[in-house]
Amino acid sequence: MKTSERRSTCPINYSVEIFGDKWMFLILRDIMFNGKNSFLEFRASDEKISSAVLTEKLNLLLEEGIVSKVTSPKNASKFLYLITEKGIELVPAMVEFLDWGSRYNPDGGPKAWLERIRQNKKKAIMELQDKLREDRRSHELM
Amino acid sequence: MKTSERRSTCPINYSVEIFGDKWMFLILRDIMFNGKNSFLEFRASDEKISSAVLTEKLNLLLEEGIVSKVTSPKNASKFLYLITEKGIELVPAMVEFLDWGSRYNPDGGPKAWLERIRQNKKKAIMELQDKLREDRRSHELM
Repeated sequence: MKTSERRSTCPINYSVEIFGDKWMFLILRDIMFNGKNSFLEFRASDEKISSAVLTEKLNLLLEEGIVSKVTSPKNASKFLYLITEKGIELVPAMVEFLDWGSRYNPDGGPKAWLERIRQNKKKAIMELQDKLREDRRSHELM
Repeated sequence: MKTSERRSTCPINYSVEIFGDKWMFLILRDIMFNGKNSFLEFRASDEKISSAVLTEKLNLLLEEGIVSKVTSPKNASKFLYLITEKGIELVPAMVEFLDWGSRYNPDGGPKAWLERIRQNKKKAIMELQDKLREDRRSHELM
């Protein structure tokens, strides 16, 4: 997104022009907490995103440098969407939203991560960030 | 929002069904970082929210118990929107979005808070939460 297209110079506005959208959050959730990285996996989530909307949102994530798109090492006709370092830096915000949401909506969600977040949030954030870096490296090296 | 109206039981989905919207973030930013609490103050922000959209979003914040609406002690025909404890619990998520946004969009934003967040994020979050509680109490007691 070009600076000239934004509504203001506020950094929260910068974040919300990208993430002020339900689907962006839900795709990032699937990448961060559910280990998803392909179009079909994102499509299969409970919230039933349409193919057209998913394509649009993935393109925005690519354009903003939050994910990168690589050919699957196992299937040359399939693409994988791998989270970048800029995306991994969003883990703390996503963890805070997960934590807040889980207080008022205790059902569902990534149980194992919720447990770790409740025990030690800072440690859970660092472990999730390390896991995402590791996953990305393993896909890049395959 | 009733459980039956939600797209899934995921707690991140719970958060995004409320906050997956640019305007909700920007109103919360104005309440948290800019000390705003009235319709006219929210209307005056750089992003130029319309009256109809602002009314709709404030009603959703009220319905979700994130703000409460009180008559201004100084002007009986004016309402104030005061953040509740449920809203104050969103400070960590908002601070993370501000911090992330400010790395990629260094201009603008609440300079004093950005400085404090960079020096000691955990302390800045607690101080901002205390300030919001204090502000609410002072309005309630006026």
